[in-house]
Amino acid sequence: METLEAINKRASLKAHLSTREVEQDKIIKVLDAARLAPSATNEQPWRFVVVKGKENVENVVTRASRMGRRVFDEAPVLILVFVNPKDYVFPDGKTFYLLDIGLAMENILLAATDLGLITHPMASLDGDKLKEMLDVPDEMEFVLATPLGYPTEGSYEQAAQEKLSQRTRKSLSEIAYSNKWGKPF
Amino acid sequence: METLEAINKRASLKAHLSTREVEQDKIIKVLDAARLAPSATNEQPWRFVVVKGKENVENVVTRASRMGRRVFDEAPVLILVFVNPKDYVFPDGKTFYLLDIGLAMENILLAATDLGLITHPMASLDGDKLKEMLDVPDEMEFVLATPLGYPTEGSYEQAAQEKLSQRTRKSLSEIAYSNKWGKPF
Repeated sequence: METLEAINKRASLKAHLSTREVEQDKIIKVLDAARLAPSATNEQPWRFVVVKGKENVENVVTRASRMGRRVFDEAPVLILVFVNPKDYVFPDGKTFYLLDIGLAMENILLAATDLGLITHPMASLDGDKLKEMLDVPDEMEFVLATPLGYPTEGSYEQAAQEKLSQRTRKSLSEIAYSNKWGKPF
Repeated sequence: METLEAINKRASLKAHLSTREVEQDKIIKVLDAARLAPSATNEQPWRFVVVKGKENVENVVTRASRMGRRVFDEAPVLILVFVNPKDYVFPDGKTFYLLDIGLAMENILLAATDLGLITHPMASLDGDKLKEMLDVPDEMEFVLATPLGYPTEGSYEQAAQEKLSQRTRKSLSEIAYSNKWGKPF
């Protein structure tokens, strides 16, 4: 898929996840995309625990869910993103590792879209429970997760169609200025 | 360009920026890519000031540089990213807007790569000076910037070749685990 097309078609589609197994080489392509993201001083602060298999994912999601409802607990793959904030440079006291995680995560979402796979970034899982369940060292911090799976529909495009038609985004004139703040782009 | 190819070829290439003007429709494509990124509760916290014209960019960069050296001061376009942290939900006290900025920024970098344009994300500019110069409201926070320009070489690929051949990234086995922390992916 062309880059701008993938950027345009990426959507959060947890309602369309099928239980069909995802091939290991596709999971690797998705993680490799994350690996190639830029980061401040090339720190590469991202670490991934990839939970595979419907039962394993269900177990993790059920125990770490916070919202009183389980989400994507039937996904065949769950990618959990952790970071060690202590290893990291904080210019101006900012938690810049979150920016780097965002750069890597977008690569994950776009690579998955390109491969016809569904994602849905989500932060509302209990980090402490995840760490306990998955033997994650104390110093690490859970940031966010995404399920990875094939769509229940015949194609990614079919699965995404409705969500994309309802997508709301600020217009360019609301978010971009030319040369000075307030001057229309 | 294919999505995975753009992800693979994206590199930080400030040394290869030419002064050639960038067409407005290409700048719009790049910002539109940012606009389509996901964000927590669809907050879309990103705001952009796009400085255009070599002289304007040089003026901004010279006055806001922190490192005792000016960087990309000859770029034809400089995209500055701001955010209003106060408008934003902070799950667990985390500055999650930085994660969202990362998601949008990666779209900028990939869309530019796809269009044959050079980028170089960089946070080390003086946010207070930028805000003063560009009439940015007090409550906003400068996050990072990237120049945008054509390569000095004949193509993006030629410009990126050396940098990509020297790229260092942790291997997948250093950053990803299977089902539990420490279990090789």
